[in-house]
Amino acid sequence: MIKITFPDGAIREYAKGSTALDIAKSISEGLARKVLAASVNGQVWDATRPILEDSTLKLLTWSDTDGKSTFWHSSAHLLAEAVESLYPGVKFWVGPAVDNGFYYDMDLGGQQITEEDLRKLEAKMAELAKKNEVYQRKEISKGDAVKYFSDKGDEYKLDLLQNLKDGEITFYTQGGFTDLCRGPHIPNTGFIKAVKLTNIAGAYWKGDEKNKQLTRVYGVTYPSQKELDEYLVLLEEAKKRDHRKLGKELGIFTFDDEVGPGLPLWMPNGAIIIEELEKLAKESEERAGYKRVVTPHIAKESLYITSGHLPYYQDSMFPPMELEGVKYYLKSMNCPHHHKIFAAEQKSYKDLPYRLAEYGTCYRYEQSGELFGLMRVRCLHMNDAHIYCTREQFYEEFKAVNEMYLKYFKIFGIDKYVMRLSLHNPAKLGQKYIDEPELWKETETLVRDVLIRTNTPFVEVQDEAAFYGPKIDIQIWSTIGREFTLATNQVDFAQGRRFKLEFTNRDNQTENPLIIHRAPLGTHERFIGFLLEHYAGKFPVWLAPLQVKILPISDKFLDYAQNLLQSLKNADIRAEIDDRSEKIGKKIRDTELSKVPYMLVIGEKEMNDNKVAVRRQGKGDLGVKTVDEFIEGVKLEIRSRSSE
Amino acid sequence: MIKITFPDGAIREYAKGSTALDIAKSISEGLARKVLAASVNGQVWDATRPILEDSTLKLLTWSDTDGKSTFWHSSAHLLAEAVESLYPGVKFWVGPAVDNGFYYDMDLGGQQITEEDLRKLEAKMAELAKKNEVYQRKEISKGDAVKYFSDKGDEYKLDLLQNLKDGEITFYTQGGFTDLCRGPHIPNTGFIKAVKLTNIAGAYWKGDEKNKQLTRVYGVTYPSQKELDEYLVLLEEAKKRDHRKLGKELGIFTFDDEVGPGLPLWMPNGAIIIEELEKLAKESEERAGYKRVVTPHIAKESLYITSGHLPYYQDSMFPPMELEGVKYYLKSMNCPHHHKIFAAEQKSYKDLPYRLAEYGTCYRYEQSGELFGLMRVRCLHMNDAHIYCTREQFYEEFKAVNEMYLKYFKIFGIDKYVMRLSLHNPAKLGQKYIDEPELWKETETLVRDVLIRTNTPFVEVQDEAAFYGPKIDIQIWSTIGREFTLATNQVDFAQGRRFKLEFTNRDNQTENPLIIHRAPLGTHERFIGFLLEHYAGKFPVWLAPLQVKILPISDKFLDYAQNLLQSLKNADIRAEIDDRSEKIGKKIRDTELSKVPYMLVIGEKEMNDNKVAVRRQGKGDLGVKTVDEFIEGVKLEIRSRSSE
Repeated sequence: MIKITFPDGAIREYAKGSTALDIAKSISEGLARKVLAASVNGQVWDATRPILEDSTLKLLTWSDTDGKSTFWHSSAHLLAEAVESLYPGVKFWVGPAVDNGFYYDMDLGGQQITEEDLRKLEAKMAELAKKNEVYQRKEISKGDAVKYFSDKGDEYKLDLLQNLKDGEITFYTQGGFTDLCRGPHIPNTGFIKAVKLTNIAGAYWKGDEKNKQLTRVYGVTYPSQKELDEYLVLLEEAKKRDHRKLGKELGIFTFDDEVGPGLPLWMPNGAIIIEELEKLAKESEERAGYKRVVTPHIAKESLYITSGHLPYYQDSMFPPMELEGVKYYLKSMNCPHHHKIFAAEQKSYKDLPYRLAEYGTCYRYEQSGELFGLMRVRCLHMNDAHIYCTREQFYEEFKAVNEMYLKYFKIFGIDKYVMRLSLHNPAKLGQKYIDEPELWKETETLVRDVLIRTNTPFVEVQDEAAFYGPKIDIQIWSTIGREFTLATNQVDFAQGRRFKLEFTNRDNQTENPLIIHRAPLGTHERFIGFLLEHYAGKFPVWLAPLQVKILPISDKFLDYAQNLLQSLKNADIRAEIDDRSEKIGKKIRDTELSKVPYMLVIGEKEMNDNKVAVRRQGKGDLGVKTVDEFIEGVKLEIRSRSSE
Repeated sequence: MIKITFPDGAIREYAKGSTALDIAKSISEGLARKVLAASVNGQVWDATRPILEDSTLKLLTWSDTDGKSTFWHSSAHLLAEAVESLYPGVKFWVGPAVDNGFYYDMDLGGQQITEEDLRKLEAKMAELAKKNEVYQRKEISKGDAVKYFSDKGDEYKLDLLQNLKDGEITFYTQGGFTDLCRGPHIPNTGFIKAVKLTNIAGAYWKGDEKNKQLTRVYGVTYPSQKELDEYLVLLEEAKKRDHRKLGKELGIFTFDDEVGPGLPLWMPNGAIIIEELEKLAKESEERAGYKRVVTPHIAKESLYITSGHLPYYQDSMFPPMELEGVKYYLKSMNCPHHHKIFAAEQKSYKDLPYRLAEYGTCYRYEQSGELFGLMRVRCLHMNDAHIYCTREQFYEEFKAVNEMYLKYFKIFGIDKYVMRLSLHNPAKLGQKYIDEPELWKETETLVRDVLIRTNTPFVEVQDEAAFYGPKIDIQIWSTIGREFTLATNQVDFAQGRRFKLEFTNRDNQTENPLIIHRAPLGTHERFIGFLLEHYAGKFPVWLAPLQVKILPISDKFLDYAQNLLQSLKNADIRAEIDDRSEKIGKKIRDTELSKVPYMLVIGEKEMNDNKVAVRRQGKGDLGVKTVDEFIEGVKLEIRSRSSE
């Protein structure tokens, strides 16, 4: 018998050689039908592989990332089987799972796969899946493996074999298809109920453009047709809401080759959104007692040695500039500069909590290949702040930060979010984590309490804290259900000491403050990218670059339009006149397309009555209102940052 | 006879060998008494040096920079004469004129000069000056010159002689003192009526710390005691108003060794002033139809090759960072980034004028030794904008920019200012200046017209334009009469073409726009430095970091103080309570010292009547007011940006 320890700590005995699937069945048949793979002693395994010793076990299903990627990797094998049956002689390179599905790279030996062919391959995959073929694992000697692929004439797999050690090589076979593969795989093909091949692309062998170009087929599979359909709808919607597409159409941002990749230039409409977000941050931070500061974008090497960014964070920093024999670095974070402001004047406990805020612009190095629109950039405008406080003040301060997050979620209509509380590992104190067991316990408890008492949904993750304290990563979901990671909210006991930040306590002794690092609105780049998708570019009035468009029915009403424009401007409403000699229908259509929230149609009647006919983007006619009535309504909508 | 051409173009004939002084006398004795030197064919000469050929002539007096520096350089010789008479055996290095006076470096051979000794030297200088000794110029062969200083045993002057060519060496003698000197000098010592030696310092020979340390004596002289006295009062006042001293006392900015020289960290009080200035800029720019943009602080080398910053401006730029084989530079100006935004979308004449504004942060390299508080820094937050317009729009656009300058001068109580209009030199078209004679004539005329029609005081300077167009440098004077150079206002016909910026004109042809570069508030760094001196740290209410301090007479009134504080905050007034257990007299004194504009003293009577006893910084008691009355008054003062 072997002892199996479950995630909840329960321990049960099973016959030696039991598989994860056996164990699942012993719990319930329903559960067994969902098991895709298993985590055995922290390693992802086939659910059908015999367990031979005492182990920890976690059953992996569709709701686990590892379960999903096992499912998709097995789908890549299914794709290969289908391709091989329709394109005899095809040779395969690699077929991994990716973020949303899988791909397989293949050498079709001069044959082509067209969009139409993808439909045929999907049908073939579905047909093969229904056979419930088992994914059979087989350990094989290097000699036998080489012989197998030599006989098959597959130079790609032979190339892969070169780098593998004898005794560590496995084959997986389902139906008539055998692949060199480390695994793991799902129990059988029957789990794959819905298939969509999404794309064909060229890919150089080993990513090197000097090599032969292979064909890469992308696909995604689901355990039910319903889930696949939902995903495809989401995909379609996400395409329409692609922040890069909308960002260009709406004049939000642009990139320029001579400026450089990952360095967005914010166009006038983007700058308005930035201003509004900064205004929001400033207002809430001022109300919460923050002080603003402004710090340079560079500093000497020695600052980053003190902070520990050098060498620990060097890979994410821009290379230095050497000036008068001294190296200067672009800042990748604002904290060291803020610490210097804290230290510039003597502090006593009466000055704490001391909260320094700055929409600071940081520069981080990301590889060109990793850059992606506003989501992965090299220039980041961060809604940053650092709170220096005593231990006694910590709970209230952390709670206030958390409340600020929740307030923002409400403003932006973010209904789904999870905070990921990353804790330390007591076994690694003094190595991965600063050796302050009491402070760890204390702050982790305080942070957890805040989350519980404020009913904030959260999950706990062991052994993922920052080296200087526990942290919270915030994950949010856009209206269409895509997940984004926003900024982190961190506790820090280390930097205060590294920077010799001190205050005099009530007993007239010097102490180091605790520091909270927080950035509820994250960076402009990622947040505006998120908002573009979230609102599909149809920003709520307070954020809309242009809030009102005045549409005169003919040139006769241009004077009235001008008066109206002035009244709107006096009320700080961003407005323009469509003074083109176009039919009103076209003016309305064009304005709808440019996603301006309000349209004011004006003709004879409106002019004579000093009124406006109001249309709301996406909602149509709202009827005729007096100018004052309309202005008051919009002002209220802006002031309340309504996103109805 | 020789022909002398005067600055007004008049030409008169004089005997060959006439001196500038002779010519001045021929005009008027009064004028002659003021002539310190002369500009002969563009070179500054002794007024007593015979002119031997047809020449242009400008007589230089105290009101000319060159006249002043000749006066001060001659005063340095007078100082040397005085030192030599009191410290026999002294050896001299160099004694130049500087911005406000002169200095002389000397080797006293072990002797000391104390503060007291300076008074003795001043008396000696005054005594020598009264002798009206002539500054006698003498051309001398290198051999004779070397012999003279070898006999004197003066190794310093011998060192200087090494680098001089035979035939170009002159001695100047006044009274018993002879110096190796290129000149020029004032006619005689009698012009020097008032002497003040201001400082003694050490200075390494040739500025190299490995060399011997010499003694540097600083001084300033004037043509009348009255002017010297006024200057000394100004100096005293300027010391009190020193922006570095006030900046520290008031928590405006700080420098940190680990961040780097020339990189100010803006503390909370400084950030408030920055915010207010930016608000002012945004308001006036929005009203004037500018669009805001936000651009990164770096760009690829190729951008600066296109712009011409590389290589022409390279010395003022930070060195590059090399990333993935590409050089990136910190931006030293915002224009190239703005041009890229202009170019990002197609433009027609209907889109012009297109005005892009950004409080962009630029980085410029200044040598460590040149850095000075906020006045010479390496990080500059610029109130920048670029206006892209057609030729027809240029006059109105330039006029509007000029009006913005004048509006700002009014807000900040800047009564004295001069615009320096720098023009091109037609002889250098195609070399120093872009070869567009018509555009030069046209825009210079337009710019001059704007200045004349708006009654703006200005001076014209030949041959000092930018290579791409005429420019205006703005000089302003602080309350205590010190001069500052603010930003420039420039016309640009070149960059539009270099960047291939285009718009479609009414005839459907592509044209390059004219560009106006403007920065009315200059940089935060220099402008706030100026304001600190200008206001002596006593900022008008709208700019004051803390606007109101509430001073409860005792703890009994703390609740009322809290209510009051909330009312002030609700009205967006920056306020604090002095809740220390101090006597009210001390609270008032301390608040006066920290330069807070308003103090509200509250006691029994005020609390019962819901009133406040108002004191104004520097003005004392303003009487008792209701809370509402006070708040309304302050709100008005803030809104109108009053600086009464």
